[in-house]
Amino acid sequence: MSERGDVVDPFGHGDDTDDIMIEAAEASHDEDDRLKPEFLTAVLAAVEEGDSEKARDLVSPLHPADIADLLELIPSERRADVAAALGDLVGAEVISELNDYVRDDLIGALAPEQLAEFAAELDTDDAVAIIEDMEEADQQAVLDAMEPEDRAAIESALAYPEESAGRLMQRDLVAVPEHMTVGQVIDYLRDNDDLTRDFWEIYIVDAAHRPVGYSQLSWILTCPRGVAMADLMKREQTLIPVDMDQEEVALRFQKYALISAAVVDRAGRLVGMITVDDVVHIISEEAGEDILRLSGAGEGDINQPVLLTVRTRLVWLVVNLGTAMIAASVVGLFERTIEHLALLAALMGIVSGMGGNAGTQTLAVMVRAIATNQVTGSNTWRMIGREFRIAATNGAALGTLIGIGSYLIYGQLGLSLVFATAILINNLVAGLAGVLIPVTLDRNNVDPAVASAVFVTMMTDSMGFLTFLGLATIFLT
Amino acid sequence: MSERGDVVDPFGHGDDTDDIMIEAAEASHDEDDRLKPEFLTAVLAAVEEGDSEKARDLVSPLHPADIADLLELIPSERRADVAAALGDLVGAEVISELNDYVRDDLIGALAPEQLAEFAAELDTDDAVAIIEDMEEADQQAVLDAMEPEDRAAIESALAYPEESAGRLMQRDLVAVPEHMTVGQVIDYLRDNDDLTRDFWEIYIVDAAHRPVGYSQLSWILTCPRGVAMADLMKREQTLIPVDMDQEEVALRFQKYALISAAVVDRAGRLVGMITVDDVVHIISEEAGEDILRLSGAGEGDINQPVLLTVRTRLVWLVVNLGTAMIAASVVGLFERTIEHLALLAALMGIVSGMGGNAGTQTLAVMVRAIATNQVTGSNTWRMIGREFRIAATNGAALGTLIGIGSYLIYGQLGLSLVFATAILINNLVAGLAGVLIPVTLDRNNVDPAVASAVFVTMMTDSMGFLTFLGLATIFLT
Repeated sequence: MSERGDVVDPFGHGDDTDDIMIEAAEASHDEDDRLKPEFLTAVLAAVEEGDSEKARDLVSPLHPADIADLLELIPSERRADVAAALGDLVGAEVISELNDYVRDDLIGALAPEQLAEFAAELDTDDAVAIIEDMEEADQQAVLDAMEPEDRAAIESALAYPEESAGRLMQRDLVAVPEHMTVGQVIDYLRDNDDLTRDFWEIYIVDAAHRPVGYSQLSWILTCPRGVAMADLMKREQTLIPVDMDQEEVALRFQKYALISAAVVDRAGRLVGMITVDDVVHIISEEAGEDILRLSGAGEGDINQPVLLTVRTRLVWLVVNLGTAMIAASVVGLFERTIEHLALLAALMGIVSGMGGNAGTQTLAVMVRAIATNQVTGSNTWRMIGREFRIAATNGAALGTLIGIGSYLIYGQLGLSLVFATAILINNLVAGLAGVLIPVTLDRNNVDPAVASAVFVTMMTDSMGFLTFLGLATIFLT
Repeated sequence: MSERGDVVDPFGHGDDTDDIMIEAAEASHDEDDRLKPEFLTAVLAAVEEGDSEKARDLVSPLHPADIADLLELIPSERRADVAAALGDLVGAEVISELNDYVRDDLIGALAPEQLAEFAAELDTDDAVAIIEDMEEADQQAVLDAMEPEDRAAIESALAYPEESAGRLMQRDLVAVPEHMTVGQVIDYLRDNDDLTRDFWEIYIVDAAHRPVGYSQLSWILTCPRGVAMADLMKREQTLIPVDMDQEEVALRFQKYALISAAVVDRAGRLVGMITVDDVVHIISEEAGEDILRLSGAGEGDINQPVLLTVRTRLVWLVVNLGTAMIAASVVGLFERTIEHLALLAALMGIVSGMGGNAGTQTLAVMVRAIATNQVTGSNTWRMIGREFRIAATNGAALGTLIGIGSYLIYGQLGLSLVFATAILINNLVAGLAGVLIPVTLDRNNVDPAVASAVFVTMMTDSMGFLTFLGLATIFLT
């Protein structure tokens, strides 16, 4: 496979388009680097009028990532027309940058030969990302249309589990033995035209092709030709097992500030390389996913078909309906108290709501801390103690505030004491549930972001109603 | 400034410690790459016994990022002792990897001369990160202890706004004029010992030091000596203005898959370089922050002093108390209806709760989409329509389910119809509020993650109570 589509041939002559580029960027982008609505309207109008040339003139200064954004921003029913008008501006790189759902929309219209050509232009990992979600028959048609070498690379990547390092890695990399000198490495790189042209580090391997170290290109470039790689390389390196989950890969890149990392098979042999540009979007996705999972919004992709979104969210709502019914049945136990003092019905929502808010605060902190590997057996008790102290302080403060406030409004000392006590107790429940539930789920290998909120809400709602109405029944009726 | 502390001198001889490293990693780390509790206990025990040498033996195989983790995981009152026992293992790199609060704890004990020495070992951006949060007098003491050249670099970085590209960039970079050839560039790199040894791309500048293009090191290494940089470089490049916000910088790196980018001043002159390893933690933080902000948990740092956390969260809870009181006052309007039919008090929480859940789903999706620049004027209406359709479908499904379910339980057709209708209406309210509120806040330059949840909850609670109890008052009493 050759270098990525967005890199101009380094051997060709660059054309002098700087100033035009900057002007074009100002015409097409707003200050947040988003495409302007006016620009989209102009492109859509040109396509509508059948003026493909004008559409292409408008779009051609854009970076492939921006062309992908353009296709995502326009209504789905217009995408095929616009893509057709833009022709080869919608190349391999654009396809690989597209949102999964938008891509599926578009590539349905392409011939297997065209897709095979795109895949051949991309790094293995980007080609796999395009092909992996296709139906098996379509996938086979594309693979059949590819050159044997490219096909072999993709087939072996597809043999690794989804979302594993094996899918994420590219197979084109530079590896040399440690006895080579800087000069020999440079000559080797200059003489081998079929090597990848985009790499950031060179791996040093032993006779069995196991990595023994790596060297940044900057070290090679700043050293005399005679220096041996053995004296230039760094031996401590982070190796990525080929079956490692991509989330774990992303955490390693982040923790150790990696630019690229060698991927090894079970025998420790070098089989591929992952570069940080392929990991950056995973870091962002994984960090952003927690909020969506915690809210029951699934993957939260705005390009997902509506019916799929409906289904995901509905499942969550029905689960929460169950917890709401439990809370309602707690209230049901106190119907006679409420008949007697209907004011309680108005105030009980404050107790459960404040507990829910406090619980969500703790939960958000814990889910983030767990996702970023900040919680271990060493500090779990400390975290529990910390959240308990916070809950006690906030509960006491809110209880006092609410107690005094309600006394000023209703002038009933008993009611205010019950109200304040229930608020304090429910804050403690919220703090403990907010830390214990995600920690327990995580220990049992359940994703705390997916399941915690239901349990925490159930606790704060039910316990809020129970303490408030229970205390009211005992002391006020 | 010289290269980062974690890079061994590329000119020194690597020592043969591979196997030892791997064994040590297994003894100290669990399968998720977190430090094992047993390992921490062993280190703490060694320090307690005054056996610094044993503690150092245990810790010395660790990567600086892991030593930083170690210091974060141990209780705060033990940190100074452990750091003292570890001595120079807690070097510049470890200090720069530490959580801000833990670092403030530790560097209070260090002399300005020591801090100045650390800062001199780091890239400008890491040195600035250590120094920028110090009290002004302490900051001045450290700067006074530095070499004039290092001091100048840090002072000029501190002159840029916090969280701007100017703070994030390093000033050590390689820039060459475009008439140079590959051979001349390599000779220049070999001959200049005071150049940085860690860089990934070379910038090509004009006579006024304005960047006109860049070249990846791999392109230089794979080309013959005679090729001119003008023929090798890529002229289209993403330039980062020095006053750009770091969040925007992170989004650019992500969108255009950058490894490094040139930073320019207002006159377009090259003043620095940002590399992806310094951006990766910002990408993760910014993506993770939304969940914390949306939940009112502030920055959600588990190392923050408890009182600071209490204050942040309490402010949020008091604001939410206001919205809960508004919802309670809505319920208060219907006290006579509730006295008449106390069952309503049990069921009304289901209506408001289901609305709250649906609103949170929409809100989470919108906050993420806005934060990742996926929402523009071009697709706002489409997003509103999409969420409305989802809300209508889910509202109808839940309303039907709840209507039938409640009829089976209570056998009151009127009640069930009121219940179902209220659920449907509140779902529509939730969907519209969940999309309109964050979009409106964003257009008015208010961070939707901070302020949206309060308004959405207020809408779903109040409207849930109003529709359910209002319909019940009209039709059931």
